[in-house]
Amino acid sequence: MVGNHRIAAGWEMQVLHGEDHEGHPRLMKRKTLLRMQGGDGEGSYSRNSGMLQGGTLRTIGHNLADEISQLGTLTEVGPVRVADFGCSSGANALEWADLCASSIVRNYHQMKSVPAPEIQHFFSDLPSNDFNSLFRELVESKRPYFAAAAPGSFHGRLFPQHSIQIAISIWSLHWMSKIPETVLDASSPAYNKGQVWLDSRNPSKAAAYSQVARHDLLSFFTHRACELEPGGIVSMMCMSRGEHEKPELQCSDEFQEANPGGGLLEQSWEELIAEGVISPKELDTFNIPVYHLSIEEIKEAIDQTSAFEIKQLEVRRDHL
Amino acid sequence: MVGNHRIAAGWEMQVLHGEDHEGHPRLMKRKTLLRMQGGDGEGSYSRNSGMLQGGTLRTIGHNLADEISQLGTLTEVGPVRVADFGCSSGANALEWADLCASSIVRNYHQMKSVPAPEIQHFFSDLPSNDFNSLFRELVESKRPYFAAAAPGSFHGRLFPQHSIQIAISIWSLHWMSKIPETVLDASSPAYNKGQVWLDSRNPSKAAAYSQVARHDLLSFFTHRACELEPGGIVSMMCMSRGEHEKPELQCSDEFQEANPGGGLLEQSWEELIAEGVISPKELDTFNIPVYHLSIEEIKEAIDQTSAFEIKQLEVRRDHL
Repeated sequence: MVGNHRIAAGWEMQVLHGEDHEGHPRLMKRKTLLRMQGGDGEGSYSRNSGMLQGGTLRTIGHNLADEISQLGTLTEVGPVRVADFGCSSGANALEWADLCASSIVRNYHQMKSVPAPEIQHFFSDLPSNDFNSLFRELVESKRPYFAAAAPGSFHGRLFPQHSIQIAISIWSLHWMSKIPETVLDASSPAYNKGQVWLDSRNPSKAAAYSQVARHDLLSFFTHRACELEPGGIVSMMCMSRGEHEKPELQCSDEFQEANPGGGLLEQSWEELIAEGVISPKELDTFNIPVYHLSIEEIKEAIDQTSAFEIKQLEVRRDHL
Repeated sequence: MVGNHRIAAGWEMQVLHGEDHEGHPRLMKRKTLLRMQGGDGEGSYSRNSGMLQGGTLRTIGHNLADEISQLGTLTEVGPVRVADFGCSSGANALEWADLCASSIVRNYHQMKSVPAPEIQHFFSDLPSNDFNSLFRELVESKRPYFAAAAPGSFHGRLFPQHSIQIAISIWSLHWMSKIPETVLDASSPAYNKGQVWLDSRNPSKAAAYSQVARHDLLSFFTHRACELEPGGIVSMMCMSRGEHEKPELQCSDEFQEANPGGGLLEQSWEELIAEGVISPKELDTFNIPVYHLSIEEIKEAIDQTSAFEIKQLEVRRDHL
């Protein structure tokens, strides 16, 4: 039997149940697959992300549009290829694709003498993302680009070298590639007991998360540097913490207030324990792979890659 | 209520039911969506196509591999891009992708002085294709290409111009873009009464199918000519009829014997009528958009496109 538990609107976790040899119910295997919930049902990402993302589009969308509109000629020959890393499904993915395409067209329109190139937009996310839903929405109206999808983790290579001109990543880079090993080790001071988030003020735990997250970000920029054509751009937006805030302070009261989803997630786990679906000990093996980077950590990864020049880097508090 | 009827292993049709204002059951809307059945359940394409496609891979796969291995340098710069038009889901799509990639690598290995390029393989099919299943299988092992998907109909444009080097289409081009209007018109001699296939010997009906199918094929080659880089190749394999066989003879006794799935499909419709799910009249509105092209019709479309040179064209009877 598979039980689908909605742990926060838009996210899905699967718990598998079975029976032991005496017929008693027991937890057979818990898949730690955590992803945006597909489809268009009540708890789907598609139905629960509009307000959040709409705000993002309003606040930072025009920055991206301006940036693209000032890029000049994007390729010597061939189409302009855009890749959205961590696109998820739902209307938001399409809105960002439309924004990129219209900005590219405006750019060439301004140059007048140069004809507008064709555009190929790659929607990229983990293979478990609901691409079927995304493609259904995609065909509902004609769009000014050739659509394609690239399934895979943005912590690895996804495209041939120098084949992308514009890379975007919207509210995705706080997802880590894995949970730090010490966070799962009961004998370590970084052990995340009784919680699913890095939401305490324990410096050991925060350091362990920080180490993995910084490695992931360096990896992200290294792979994008290889995939991007020289002169291409990366435009990214992710959950972050304030400037000069220590890693262990990333989930500050201010953040919790702005992001009540974190609290709901903890509540859902408590309900699962109360229902006897999981034990408190099992809770300790489950952790959400999210880390809020600081401006300094982002700068560090970009400097280490030695392939990018920072054009704009800011912390905004108005989009949550 | 939605009833999923397995009308032949690997194919799926949806029938929607409801109640009229007096509470009697009635057919609300029949979606004429006909596609390969997704997932990996009993009736899925994935579980029911192995033997059929395995045979295809053995018999014509080596032709394609040889052809690719003799192509020389495929691009001046950048990756080699392969597109599979009508890929469906399941292991078959991956086997053809692997075959193309290994043939490209062998080609460059033979040339010795030229380093092998990176490969990007596009899986392309209708947006209703089960790409989620395909992507799940894709990640099970590391593959020698960057995988991507392009959702859409191969009767239209799917890629930027000159961006593909190798186009393949395996057992897909017998699918038409639509059913001829006269076939749905009760007053026309081409009306397909009591059947779901073009399986009679009625010349009017066959001519109507032939007209749409020839237009579709010309459209397929025109779009591929635009998408392919000069020097690129198309390798296609589809259900066809024998040389010099008239359109109305395409579903000959020999074909029926080799393709018993057609008969099972008719049987399934008869069962739906017997169960009262649909009426005989409703059967007349449903037709399978399949036409078996002749060698002459394929030659005609290629000649009309004026963009391709035929390197090899043959009818084989040994793969069914």
